[in-house]
Amino acid sequence: MQFSENLSEESRPILTWQNIIDWAQTHYRERIFLKDEQIPTRPQLIYLVNRGAVRLVSKAPNQPDLNSLNELEESEEQLDEAFLGFIGAGLPFEIVTESSFSIHAYAHVDRTQVAWLYWQDLENWPDFRQEIYEAFRYQHQRKLLWLSALGQRRTIDRLTSFLILLVQEYGTDQEQNCCLPYSLTHAQIGSAIGSTRVTVTRLMGKLRRQGIISIKNDNSICINGHSLDRGQADNR
Amino acid sequence: MQFSENLSEESRPILTWQNIIDWAQTHYRERIFLKDEQIPTRPQLIYLVNRGAVRLVSKAPNQPDLNSLNELEESEEQLDEAFLGFIGAGLPFEIVTESSFSIHAYAHVDRTQVAWLYWQDLENWPDFRQEIYEAFRYQHQRKLLWLSALGQRRTIDRLTSFLILLVQEYGTDQEQNCCLPYSLTHAQIGSAIGSTRVTVTRLMGKLRRQGIISIKNDNSICINGHSLDRGQADNR
Repeated sequence: MQFSENLSEESRPILTWQNIIDWAQTHYRERIFLKDEQIPTRPQLIYLVNRGAVRLVSKAPNQPDLNSLNELEESEEQLDEAFLGFIGAGLPFEIVTESSFSIHAYAHVDRTQVAWLYWQDLENWPDFRQEIYEAFRYQHQRKLLWLSALGQRRTIDRLTSFLILLVQEYGTDQEQNCCLPYSLTHAQIGSAIGSTRVTVTRLMGKLRRQGIISIKNDNSICINGHSLDRGQADNR
Repeated sequence: MQFSENLSEESRPILTWQNIIDWAQTHYRERIFLKDEQIPTRPQLIYLVNRGAVRLVSKAPNQPDLNSLNELEESEEQLDEAFLGFIGAGLPFEIVTESSFSIHAYAHVDRTQVAWLYWQDLENWPDFRQEIYEAFRYQHQRKLLWLSALGQRRTIDRLTSFLILLVQEYGTDQEQNCCLPYSLTHAQIGSAIGSTRVTVTRLMGKLRRQGIISIKNDNSICINGHSLDRGQADNR
């Protein structure tokens, strides 16, 4: 997906993206990462995913009362980091820590290629800078929808809405379904919706039996077309 | 707070903002709203809050199984909309519905003044357009932190982090504390963190007894300086 597909009024010249990747390569500002390898990031830099996909997660501050035995037992079924979304190929991201939560980027698939440049470098490419801004404008709108999903009180509502939003945003059509091209563990899903791996596993089973989702052989998650249509009913 | 305070490298010329508000007034693109009055919005338009504050909320799709008696009883203590944040004076917002969740804007305080213009109008003011983009870029980063807060499994952790993020973003310093200048009901807080009014009331009492928060006479929420420092410990 081109990142400008949804909001930009003009189509992005592919040449510029390729020019910038070439420029990054000749300036040693590009690297290929193994699956689950952390991508070192700094504020003031903008990162471009040229191949593969990046997973953003946040780590919560250490709560002083998290060291009790009770919490240690519970932590076995809970990640200490929250899944915040994917950045697919052709999309930018940045990480500006301003809080006790620290946000980190990982290569979600093997051989993910990332280039980086300074915001001021973008002054050489004003059209491209506007594309970057459009991408963040779009991501901001998507995150408002994520927050809408997470404001629901019942875990199964949060889970269903979260999966539909993910598949709408990143999914690819496959027969009657739309499937997430990336794997995502039940613990990772739980970390996004404020629940646990065990609860997610139980509720995913319920959604499968209701025919709302299906799981392919490679474990990827699909939403059946009817459920997705309902989720998109208000689309313009 | 000027919206460019945090991310823009140049200070925003106040003149331009005032020029645009003047322009909006002479073109009948400005209105003053009563407290809790809904602000009609359309995609493709950008809204500028010139005075007061706007509250963004989202409404969830009607779930078919929400009509059971059990749910009706539970709904008494739950809003059917989720609080998504404030837009203060000097800041822009837009609403681009692309999902089953519909996002709405309300005047949060009385006599909130809002102007609007088309994105293409901004071509006349390229510097101002960049300021708008910077504001959305900043809001996107803030929403990643909100999502981090809501990924926590324990309701009290979600509540504490949520209040700290709100006060960091919108608060004003008052003696040792930092206080939210806007009122927010326990039901509204519950709607943001996936909980209920009753639970929020109980946990707010706990946070008060622990000295983490205090409530002023006008019901506004304050975070004590120490807790806020801890929340900001990783700040650059």
